[in-house]
Amino acid sequence: MRPETPLLDTVQIPADLRKLTDDQLPQLAQELRTEMIDAVSVTGGHLGAGLGVVELTIALHHTFNTPHDRIIWDVGHQCYPHKILTGRRDRIRTLRKQDGLSGFTKRSESEYDPFGAAHSSTSISAGLGMAEGSRLQGVKRDVVSIIGDGSITAGMAYEAMNNAGAMDARQIVILNDNDMSIAPPTGAMSHYLARLVSGKTYRGLRETAKQLNEKLPKFLADKARKTEEYARSFWTGGTMFEELGFYYVGPIDGHNLSALLPILRNVRDSEQGPILIHVRTEKGKGYEPAESSADKMHGVSKFNVITGEQSKPTPNAPSYTKVFGQTLAQEGEHDDRIVGITAAMPNGTGIDIFGEAFPDRIYDVGIAEQHAVTFAAGLATEGLKPFCAIYSTFLQRGYDQVVHDVSIQNLPVRFPIDRAGFVGADGATHAGSFDVAYLGCLPGFTIMAASDEAELKHMVRTAAEFDEGPIAFRYPRGEGVGVDMPERGEVLEIGKGRIVRQGTKIAILSFGSRLADSLLAAEELQRLGLSTTVADARFAKPLDTDLVERLAREHEVLITVEEGSVGGFSSYVLHHLATCGALDAGLKVRPMVMPDEYIDQMSPDAMIERAGLDSRAILATAVAALGMEVPVAANS
Amino acid sequence: MRPETPLLDTVQIPADLRKLTDDQLPQLAQELRTEMIDAVSVTGGHLGAGLGVVELTIALHHTFNTPHDRIIWDVGHQCYPHKILTGRRDRIRTLRKQDGLSGFTKRSESEYDPFGAAHSSTSISAGLGMAEGSRLQGVKRDVVSIIGDGSITAGMAYEAMNNAGAMDARQIVILNDNDMSIAPPTGAMSHYLARLVSGKTYRGLRETAKQLNEKLPKFLADKARKTEEYARSFWTGGTMFEELGFYYVGPIDGHNLSALLPILRNVRDSEQGPILIHVRTEKGKGYEPAESSADKMHGVSKFNVITGEQSKPTPNAPSYTKVFGQTLAQEGEHDDRIVGITAAMPNGTGIDIFGEAFPDRIYDVGIAEQHAVTFAAGLATEGLKPFCAIYSTFLQRGYDQVVHDVSIQNLPVRFPIDRAGFVGADGATHAGSFDVAYLGCLPGFTIMAASDEAELKHMVRTAAEFDEGPIAFRYPRGEGVGVDMPERGEVLEIGKGRIVRQGTKIAILSFGSRLADSLLAAEELQRLGLSTTVADARFAKPLDTDLVERLAREHEVLITVEEGSVGGFSSYVLHHLATCGALDAGLKVRPMVMPDEYIDQMSPDAMIERAGLDSRAILATAVAALGMEVPVAANS
Repeated sequence: MRPETPLLDTVQIPADLRKLTDDQLPQLAQELRTEMIDAVSVTGGHLGAGLGVVELTIALHHTFNTPHDRIIWDVGHQCYPHKILTGRRDRIRTLRKQDGLSGFTKRSESEYDPFGAAHSSTSISAGLGMAEGSRLQGVKRDVVSIIGDGSITAGMAYEAMNNAGAMDARQIVILNDNDMSIAPPTGAMSHYLARLVSGKTYRGLRETAKQLNEKLPKFLADKARKTEEYARSFWTGGTMFEELGFYYVGPIDGHNLSALLPILRNVRDSEQGPILIHVRTEKGKGYEPAESSADKMHGVSKFNVITGEQSKPTPNAPSYTKVFGQTLAQEGEHDDRIVGITAAMPNGTGIDIFGEAFPDRIYDVGIAEQHAVTFAAGLATEGLKPFCAIYSTFLQRGYDQVVHDVSIQNLPVRFPIDRAGFVGADGATHAGSFDVAYLGCLPGFTIMAASDEAELKHMVRTAAEFDEGPIAFRYPRGEGVGVDMPERGEVLEIGKGRIVRQGTKIAILSFGSRLADSLLAAEELQRLGLSTTVADARFAKPLDTDLVERLAREHEVLITVEEGSVGGFSSYVLHHLATCGALDAGLKVRPMVMPDEYIDQMSPDAMIERAGLDSRAILATAVAALGMEVPVAANS
Repeated sequence: MRPETPLLDTVQIPADLRKLTDDQLPQLAQELRTEMIDAVSVTGGHLGAGLGVVELTIALHHTFNTPHDRIIWDVGHQCYPHKILTGRRDRIRTLRKQDGLSGFTKRSESEYDPFGAAHSSTSISAGLGMAEGSRLQGVKRDVVSIIGDGSITAGMAYEAMNNAGAMDARQIVILNDNDMSIAPPTGAMSHYLARLVSGKTYRGLRETAKQLNEKLPKFLADKARKTEEYARSFWTGGTMFEELGFYYVGPIDGHNLSALLPILRNVRDSEQGPILIHVRTEKGKGYEPAESSADKMHGVSKFNVITGEQSKPTPNAPSYTKVFGQTLAQEGEHDDRIVGITAAMPNGTGIDIFGEAFPDRIYDVGIAEQHAVTFAAGLATEGLKPFCAIYSTFLQRGYDQVVHDVSIQNLPVRFPIDRAGFVGADGATHAGSFDVAYLGCLPGFTIMAASDEAELKHMVRTAAEFDEGPIAFRYPRGEGVGVDMPERGEVLEIGKGRIVRQGTKIAILSFGSRLADSLLAAEELQRLGLSTTVADARFAKPLDTDLVERLAREHEVLITVEEGSVGGFSSYVLHHLATCGALDAGLKVRPMVMPDEYIDQMSPDAMIERAGLDSRAILATAVAALGMEVPVAANS
């Protein structure tokens, strides 16, 4: 049956795909799925989402004239099949690797990626902008925004639909409903979609055509006679989307090309808009180990294609995420006012561990960071102790709520900030670079950073006990450094750092994750005869001004180092030193922060090195501040 | 007819109100309305919104046991009647004044304000937190969140409803639908609400009761026989809210107490939830000048109660807002790729002036800052030149979109940032304090600040011509400084500041609005024999490092000054000076930024003084840096 040359080998770009007949596409889908499984088995990455949209990806590129027409994938977890079909198959085994393909769509990578993604729920807004931008310039173009049923719970998606529905924009939205984002979705919208699907009845051909014709008066009018084409589509409702001004079509079986293709063609050929096509897919489709796993093999490490077994390297220390979750559960035993909030990341944040211990005190609000923060503020007003666990990069989504609802009201909401600093394979979009800058400017905000996993344990306890206002504590992605763990965390003194190692000439003041490298640099400096102090600031705010002044006074060089952007910890140190006059007589002060660039995916260690924040860079900075040459041995 | 003692005089707190009979409430409403009009006529402030909810406010406090029960007003423009009824009548004529009442709800002001407001669309999230917080602690309590039809277009409100609807939380949401927020609302939701209302039919008593009983199976079951109580309420649909898991009641005439009271009582006495009550009100109700004005006298200065005529002081110079709008319209003539985006603030941002000139190139997306930013990014990908005009404080709502969709993709979206710095009567919630800190940390972001209105004109032109990446320009609320205006703005050299005045001993480097005060301070310093340079940085990023280094090299004291928080311009100057070694040999550098506190409402000048950013503070800082005493004359 199978031809000697795989069809996939004939498809370099979508124009090649469009030369294939409808009958050939199921085979292409099979080959594409196999290729994708094989690629991810060697690279690791996002598997389940891509498997769920193999047919949809093919149908879209077959129907629409990409790249002239725009296809915008939301989040981008599902874009690997799209990458394979759009000129990137030869590099697909470099996914998420240094100098390789991004794990998300990316404008600079391909003209077939009209909008970069990674955070969720942006595709409708971006697509609407493209549709309007094209219209204004008299360019006829189709714009297709794909969005998942998890992503559509974010307020941003609603804002975009509310706007698009009133504008009569020529935009096509495909709701990729797999009843699953990273975790099963929560919220009323999810129930609504489930009702739409569960209420389905396959209507007869004639009836379906008639209904479509009634509901979409201009849309499809000339096509309505070709009733066969609607054989696999059906109509059940979608009132909510209709109320928002969309034509609703669906739900459609997203793995059935003979359903997808005619519907997409009709939508393409109509002049109507905006249109929402509700497509049902299965995450992990067509790969048994994925289909049968709880998370549909959402994100995987390298794996064995036959068994689906992933090769997880043995960790050297517990992850910060796990330490956070376990410690919060431990503190929850001591204080029943502790409650946990997550925005659709129960497992990613580790707060599921707390939730298992206290199922009545955990809230997963969906992909809804804005609501999560203000909901936590509401809980705080009633005397509870909310821990609102959101990654550094996603907390940006709730920034105004942090300012307006938490900080201005000085409510004691706790923000455990995971993924603070570089994150490796997920690249620039997921880096937690800005949290200290965007939180530290807020009056009265307390900010800590953990230099190791035992410190994190102290900080969870400290945050639980601290009731005077908002408090955040940041910690990096990945494993701890392997220190001994205390039975229970200690309550840290607010605004006080600690000297880890005492020297006389050079002081390195580290905030958070750079402490271990600071100590390495100090040892090397000591070998060069340069006596070095290392301190762990613990707090960016309130700043330990006694410690900062003492380090400035007692050393010739003061280096600050942090895994964050300018405008954060280092800036507060400089600001204080300048304001108190400690710089008047001269100080070789060197702030070390992330550089002014976005760093693409590579290993976290490589990112640290690229950013100039590793032990060698600290050493080099100290030596250069003293006007010395960096020794060759140290620099090798 | 009217009794000798006004009823309002008998109501100090809501408990007094609850002693009144239903029959007395219309008179109380009349008195309350009169009192509010009189108060705002002397204070200025938000008039129309409060007038629209006089009856609703009375009905809520009469029905619910405040402050034990929680009433959460969204935005807070409408809270003046609430303040009058909750122990603050004696201070109502201090509204929005220094040491007076806030123009918004505020937790620190009254136990009847369980949640502070000012930014929109937070009330459902906060209320849900309170409802859950009470439930977890076994406290029986009603929580009522009021939200406007404008506010409900924000994604945050949808996120909250999506969560509440799935949680079966005991929460009451009152949709205060006046077809108006600040400007007429836009978007599909607005059309939907209009359809709900236009489709209304006053049903017979028996029929209404039957319908309610059907739709709310448990809710009201025991009440269903008291059909009279529903005489003025009716039932028309609200499917969209029902799909989100809410019981929908309404629309109800919000000025008819005999409709409001029985419905609220029944909702209170039911065990059901969440419930959305759709209340129709008229903004400006009961005050003819407000009812007949286009904006329903939304925000007013002092006015004549008889005529409604407002006393607007004659401006000395055009407002920055107007200069922005006019200049954008002017540049729009030269470049048809310029498009404008506003999030429900066409007039407030001045972009309506551009919109009048180019109606096809302006987008009001509703209260939807997240969508606004990414929609602008989408337009930019198609080669347009979007100006996304959002106040500094509201841009916080779109922060993640600025990072993820604009900055990481380096898309040339222009951000005109009005209300940067202190804003006066609107207080801390509206201050534009953090924009430089939260934008300046983003790699590659260009940030300007206008020191006067001519500079703003240059910056609009510069932003229009700049196509290499995102660019923001900030400018303060209020009038310009009265400089001569060029015919057309000039294109500024990116990353270059300017020396405004040359001296030798002290250098003052101002970013933005503090230039005039810097010049005043310099004159005074000159009189003290201290030769002073003043420079206008123009750019926080890219920083004019040549200028900064030169100022550091050639002066004994370097002061930076800006109307913004720590972590912004001053931090970049310090960071650069430290990194390049310019501090090694000593420099009396003094960064002047906003203090680490939220400053409540007072005049903008008083805020500047309180913040220590006025000319005297600059002078004092310079003199103190030199170890001199501040001269009495200068300090007087």
